[in-house]
Amino acid sequence: MFMPKEMKFFDLFDKQTATMLEAAQYFVEIITKPEINRNTLDKMHSIEHRGDENTHTIINTLNESFLTPFDREDIMELANYMDDVIDGIHLITNRMYLYKIENPSEETKKLAEIIKKSVEALQIAVTALRNNKKMKDTLRQCIEINRLENLADEIRDGAISRLLNDPNTEPLFAIKQKEIWETAELVTDSCEKVANVLESILVKNN
Amino acid sequence: MFMPKEMKFFDLFDKQTATMLEAAQYFVEIITKPEINRNTLDKMHSIEHRGDENTHTIINTLNESFLTPFDREDIMELANYMDDVIDGIHLITNRMYLYKIENPSEETKKLAEIIKKSVEALQIAVTALRNNKKMKDTLRQCIEINRLENLADEIRDGAISRLLNDPNTEPLFAIKQKEIWETAELVTDSCEKVANVLESILVKNN
Amino acid sequence: MFMPKEMKFFDLFDKQTATMLEAAQYFVEIITKPEINRNTLDKMHSIEHRGDENTHTIINTLNESFLTPFDREDIMELANYMDDVIDGIHLITNRMYLYKIENPSEETKKLAEIIKKSVEALQIAVTALRNNKKMKDTLRQCIEINRLENLADEIRDGAISRLLNDPNTEPLFAIKQKEIWETAELVTDSCEKVANVLESILVKNN
Repeated sequence: MFMPKEMKFFDLFDKQTATMLEAAQYFVEIITKPEINRNTLDKMHSIEHRGDENTHTIINTLNESFLTPFDREDIMELANYMDDVIDGIHLITNRMYLYKIENPSEETKKLAEIIKKSVEALQIAVTALRNNKKMKDTLRQCIEINRLENLADEIRDGAISRLLNDPNTEPLFAIKQKEIWETAELVTDSCEKVANVLESILVKNN
Repeated sequence: MFMPKEMKFFDLFDKQTATMLEAAQYFVEIITKPEINRNTLDKMHSIEHRGDENTHTIINTLNESFLTPFDREDIMELANYMDDVIDGIHLITNRMYLYKIENPSEETKKLAEIIKKSVEALQIAVTALRNNKKMKDTLRQCIEINRLENLADEIRDGAISRLLNDPNTEPLFAIKQKEIWETAELVTDSCEKVANVLESILVKNN
Repeated sequence: MFMPKEMKFFDLFDKQTATMLEAAQYFVEIITKPEINRNTLDKMHSIEHRGDENTHTIINTLNESFLTPFDREDIMELANYMDDVIDGIHLITNRMYLYKIENPSEETKKLAEIIKKSVEALQIAVTALRNNKKMKDTLRQCIEINRLENLADEIRDGAISRLLNDPNTEPLFAIKQKEIWETAELVTDSCEKVANVLESILVKNN
């Protein structure tokens, strides 16, 4: 169905979803610990840097390619939103380090699990994209990613309102913690944007 | 001027502006009351859900249509920005409920009135779009929407600076109230984005 | 290389980079003073207004032009991101006035210098765009703008975390000051977006 030259885009996207998953899994791991230290942040930074390199490779390949497996703008959007997922996970890690957040909250742990599940679903959806017969697999994962995004919304809303409605909350802590939960929810938004592009690719190519 | 098949897009946009107006009118109504309760939020949620359905219908119709009354990307942008208007009104309602905001402030009421007026202007502008002879009607409403957006900016700026410059303001309340006013102003930004697409459609088609 | 009619776009972009530089230089000047007064804000507002007029002229010229020196969407993006730079500088000035911020912090001064340097680099990059032989000049400036954006990131991160980690920080002041530093960093993001469009223009045209 696809030309050999076009196949390289699938390889590049597979590489990027693997890097996304590495970031998501590492984030789940580090927030079980009482604090984010400099080493942890450096390791997350190196994952994020690899994500940037993958993004540049996809865009350079696109600029040099005459034939592409689907619309050029869809490839651009996939590359950018995937990059946003990794950048977002790095950003939360960086904020938790800078703000000296200790003993990550239960809600942060729940959000980290949702991010990991969303990225796992994206990986299946992207792999299935190679094969027209697996279209339903991609669509099923996109629906799951939408569900996870809604769940992240609810967790963030509940967490922030409990925090701000409690008169004993220390205001400076509230500012920091609110930002961390909001950033975590934005990562699931970026996953949903990847899923929306995948759905639109399927609609246009079938 | 337009083909019968293209006319369905105007019908779909009319349906969506009606839903936008319903959300805006309901918002004006509910903030006259001392608090947002669960029933109120549920009703706003059902309006927002209908807005989502209208958006999906527009996008599906676009994907199935060979002929469109104006550029495909303009139809996509109109659909998305209109959806943002309704989502934004729902979001403020949800925040006011979650944050247990009592006795909505005068500034929130003013912003709600501006949102309603902007959506009324959008409805006239979109209806006039069907008829090339009414081009000036559309442009006049777009200018009015720009004026309303500037007014919302000023009201938000004044409200937030008074809040934060008053040393008696309770910091946790400040965080909540600032977010609500900012979200309300963003709704008028989304109205302006709809108006900008309408203007650009007129420029390209005349 | 370019047709005479296409050259007008370069003139328009040169005019806009001059306005950007005027805003950036004026911002560096005013934050050496103990406070932003109404006259200062009015002058910044008039610069921002000229930026808006330049943006409209670029977009109107685009709509009336059959031939353009590079892709239409790239011209649109350049115009919009350049406008964002000026809007952002105006926004910080406005916030500092409204929030009655006295004696701007060292970090704000550093961010103002970075914004000025970024805009100076953009001016060189845009001027060099006229001449295919100067392609490397444009690319060198784009790399510099990326470096400056990373630097602004670090300054904002350090500044905000010191502010929020200090238990003596007054919470209402923290909310105001955090917003100002974040807005300043967003201006360097907009400069980077301009640079990214310039790079993509070079890739496509060479």
